[in-house]
Amino acid sequence: MHKVEFMPVGRRGLCPEGITLLECARRLDVDLVGICGGVGVCHRCRVQVVAGPVSEPTAEDREAFSEEEIGQGRRLACMTVPQGDIRVHVPPESLSAPQRTQVEGLEVRVDPDPLVRGFEVRMTAPSLGRPLPDDRNLWDVLRRDHGLAPGTIDLAVQQVLASRLRELRFEASVVVREGEIIALDAPATRWIGLAVDIGTTKIAVYLVDMKSGDIIASAGLMNPQISYGEDIIARIHNAGESVENAARMQTLLVDALNDSVSALCAEIGAEPAHIVDAVLVANTAVHHLFLRLPVRQLGLVPYVPGIGGAEDFKARDIGLKTAPGAWAHMLPNIAGYVGADHVAMLLAIGMSRREGVTLAIDIGTNTEICLNRGGRMKSVSCASGPAFEGAQIRFGMRAAVGAIEHVRFREGRPEIQTIGGGAPVGICGSGLLDAVAQMLQEGVIDATGRMLDHPLVRRRDGVQEFILAERPGQEDITVSQKDVRELQAAKTAIRLGVQALVEDAGIKDEDIDRVIIAGAFGTYIDVESSIAIGMLPALPLGRFDQVGNAAGTGARLALVSRERRREALAIAELNGYLELARIPDFNEKFAAITPMGASVS
Amino acid sequence: MHKVEFMPVGRRGLCPEGITLLECARRLDVDLVGICGGVGVCHRCRVQVVAGPVSEPTAEDREAFSEEEIGQGRRLACMTVPQGDIRVHVPPESLSAPQRTQVEGLEVRVDPDPLVRGFEVRMTAPSLGRPLPDDRNLWDVLRRDHGLAPGTIDLAVQQVLASRLRELRFEASVVVREGEIIALDAPATRWIGLAVDIGTTKIAVYLVDMKSGDIIASAGLMNPQISYGEDIIARIHNAGESVENAARMQTLLVDALNDSVSALCAEIGAEPAHIVDAVLVANTAVHHLFLRLPVRQLGLVPYVPGIGGAEDFKARDIGLKTAPGAWAHMLPNIAGYVGADHVAMLLAIGMSRREGVTLAIDIGTNTEICLNRGGRMKSVSCASGPAFEGAQIRFGMRAAVGAIEHVRFREGRPEIQTIGGGAPVGICGSGLLDAVAQMLQEGVIDATGRMLDHPLVRRRDGVQEFILAERPGQEDITVSQKDVRELQAAKTAIRLGVQALVEDAGIKDEDIDRVIIAGAFGTYIDVESSIAIGMLPALPLGRFDQVGNAAGTGARLALVSRERRREALAIAELNGYLELARIPDFNEKFAAITPMGASVS
Repeated sequence: MHKVEFMPVGRRGLCPEGITLLECARRLDVDLVGICGGVGVCHRCRVQVVAGPVSEPTAEDREAFSEEEIGQGRRLACMTVPQGDIRVHVPPESLSAPQRTQVEGLEVRVDPDPLVRGFEVRMTAPSLGRPLPDDRNLWDVLRRDHGLAPGTIDLAVQQVLASRLRELRFEASVVVREGEIIALDAPATRWIGLAVDIGTTKIAVYLVDMKSGDIIASAGLMNPQISYGEDIIARIHNAGESVENAARMQTLLVDALNDSVSALCAEIGAEPAHIVDAVLVANTAVHHLFLRLPVRQLGLVPYVPGIGGAEDFKARDIGLKTAPGAWAHMLPNIAGYVGADHVAMLLAIGMSRREGVTLAIDIGTNTEICLNRGGRMKSVSCASGPAFEGAQIRFGMRAAVGAIEHVRFREGRPEIQTIGGGAPVGICGSGLLDAVAQMLQEGVIDATGRMLDHPLVRRRDGVQEFILAERPGQEDITVSQKDVRELQAAKTAIRLGVQALVEDAGIKDEDIDRVIIAGAFGTYIDVESSIAIGMLPALPLGRFDQVGNAAGTGARLALVSRERRREALAIAELNGYLELARIPDFNEKFAAITPMGASVS
Repeated sequence: MHKVEFMPVGRRGLCPEGITLLECARRLDVDLVGICGGVGVCHRCRVQVVAGPVSEPTAEDREAFSEEEIGQGRRLACMTVPQGDIRVHVPPESLSAPQRTQVEGLEVRVDPDPLVRGFEVRMTAPSLGRPLPDDRNLWDVLRRDHGLAPGTIDLAVQQVLASRLRELRFEASVVVREGEIIALDAPATRWIGLAVDIGTTKIAVYLVDMKSGDIIASAGLMNPQISYGEDIIARIHNAGESVENAARMQTLLVDALNDSVSALCAEIGAEPAHIVDAVLVANTAVHHLFLRLPVRQLGLVPYVPGIGGAEDFKARDIGLKTAPGAWAHMLPNIAGYVGADHVAMLLAIGMSRREGVTLAIDIGTNTEICLNRGGRMKSVSCASGPAFEGAQIRFGMRAAVGAIEHVRFREGRPEIQTIGGGAPVGICGSGLLDAVAQMLQEGVIDATGRMLDHPLVRRRDGVQEFILAERPGQEDITVSQKDVRELQAAKTAIRLGVQALVEDAGIKDEDIDRVIIAGAFGTYIDVESSIAIGMLPALPLGRFDQVGNAAGTGARLALVSRERRREALAIAELNGYLELARIPDFNEKFAAITPMGASVS
């Protein structure tokens, strides 16, 4: 048997020797496309072998891929046989049912007041009597018709200025950003902006009309850096190992973004060259990997960012496909594990302008929590681990089709709900949370997390497990004692973060007026279950808000509004970062809140 | 016989069929290196065939060059036989006697006050108790120790910041330019600047200590774009023909600059990565070709620059080898044929601050002239043609070893002086000017430029020619009637420019207090001869100054002094450009001043 892992869907398991990758995918319920029935003809089951040995490329592989691609591990799944433990990357186009990625975010209205502005110009062609240089001619018209003072012109725009102006007979639309002309094209060009939330796992991309501030197209995709490690620590390690690794990881990410942007532009009949501003947010590590900044120090005490401040750089300098002269902006990072995406989330929910006491929380492998008390903000970061992403969980998987996402007990037996509604193939984070909460309620586990005797609890290979879904003819889907412990560690980490903030503020849980749960994962969790196991404080349900991808919304706000961009700076500036590792009696406190069950401080 | 041209030395002539390029070079007095005696062993006579057919590459060629280089026309001169009319580029390292390029310029003292400043910083390493991001940490120290407000950090610096700071144990020297950190290296790094005057033919490169403002190394080189045309019109045409041509011409120039900069840095034990600012000047066309701006409109009425304004751009954006975050600056262009090099020359001579009436003149293929009358400046551009560069002149050549550079008649016979003092191989611009002035004085030609009967005048192939230097066993070096006409046209163009400015100002020649002759060529001409043929106004010799490469000096001033950089902007802004083509009765005026002889208006 070989261990086979499919990325980024996060399905893994043992497969017998001698079967193809396509067959492995079927056994592990990964929905690989296979139109021709696995005979190497349709070339749809393209995958990339990231680690581990596989059979030699076949003639079919060589037909489907270039020599270079073969060298990168690209193969047809139906022609490739694992020769040991392997990890395989499955690109989205090779999946018949796409993974759930979230782009829907908080709807926040804002008056557009972007940093870039388009202007229509009608110039007079130069003559011997008025032999004005083109730049001077252009600035004269911008001053006369739009009141602009002469400024600078990006070199890339200069490199087309004289020829393009003549093609356009001296009538054009130009985009100015803080006194710099960054784009020029035909009159009445529709200039667009780009907002991106780059998560460790998922990426949300939005195209925005710069005049109205409206989203005109959006897409969700997986972060392809997953091939270099599911968790960010592995990626930090990989990038720190060699400059080539860091470069490859950056290129992989930028290429994926560019592909997505091109596809979105095509959808709406626009061109990447009409993207004149971009705002990107990410956690600190992904932020650094994206800009190819050194990341080694992020993995070492005291975990400081190389760059904390907000970023403005020419999009071309990192290879982003936009108007050649466009700038990109990244919101500031607060700490090594409280990044620009957290700032964007706080911006989206208007945290700094909120009255009363607000707790905002973005749950993931790393969970960032912010407590605001009438403008005084403090954030912590908790290492909640990958349990919510399905890693380290026996039947864990990401939120893709077939994942059990909700569990309710009815008459002593669990009822499950899967993504897509079909047969279950694994458990995603929200499903696990539900299952454990229900198991606690039904007495399958006790408050310490220990699994008790129960008709659905059995022992296999010396380990207790709870049968969540029977699958005749296939392995049952179970929650093991170890799975419960993983979730318990995650909930304890989060609960401790909340408690640290509450104690630091000198208040009690009950004083919290509002709890905002942001992020893709937070959208799907059941708040009651979260309270039940003690992950979230036991407050009235009416005080909780689940707002979806708020980081993406924050990026869009900073894109279309100069005021919001300044507000993001202020949020990072004013945010007092609380380092959990420095809390006295950390271990004792951790132990004290490890038991499960609803609680308030 | 085939026509063979050697570039950039500008030697050309007819060579019999069947002889090698090395042999052709010898016949045309081009000093190609040939250590092995022309048997393909020493690989020193490397040339590049730019145009025309030659013999197939030999085994020796293939040993000396890569396949790609062979494809680019690179050959060993000793192994290559012309198969028709050809043009050959000879790189400087293949010449045994280098061509005269000028870097010595006007010595102007200026208090250094550069746009970039280096600061020494000693930071405290971050800790859990003080987990500051590196950028914040750095800015805190810059504020505390040097009073700087926090600003931005160039992306390229960010990309090394965290790792370099740790290597340097948080002690470093950083360079700040207008609030942006553009370089960081070990404490006490000696930061240097780069000033460049890119001429159509010659380039002068200077490395400058940014603290003292002193030149610490300099070099002269040929502009390799010469292979795409000796005169700028040919290059404009070539670059306008295809994007590839323009790109190749730009790369050629930047590569040559980078090579020169690297060599200079090695000389003084510095690194290109320590170059933190650069100022470059050029005429408008070379300026545009250097930045890869469109140039077609420069060749068409009304000859306007695409960009007139001063330029600030990241040096990396045009491939210049400097500190990765460094900016480069180009002075403004006034008109299509009055460029940044003219502005630099005016800056170097302090034109805008001069009292009285000053005429400044930079003689070349294109001659720019400026008249200043107590701060009111106006410039013209005259198409003086390539006679001074030796083109279109039967025995013309550039100012290289063997060129006749001065001529005096003694007892009715010409005495010549050559560059290097050896046997004459041709005539350069200053030599021709002397020769014609002396011929006029000695009655060899009359005021209309017609060659008269004289013992040294003979007729060959129906054309009259004056024997300047007899060469037993070799062709005599002569000045033909056509050569005289070429020089006459050049002097008339220049004289007309001066006259137009003087008339426009409503003054007379005698009112000119000072005539400043700048530029490499201007250094070597004899003012008396120039007056004698009527090229320059007949003023007392004491009013003339020959100042050498003032454009390079202007570039250096703008590099080390913010005030001088602003002054350059003001010069371009205030300079009233006079378009000769718009002068009424241009042709009549031209005809009226065509006769030779000393004159004042």
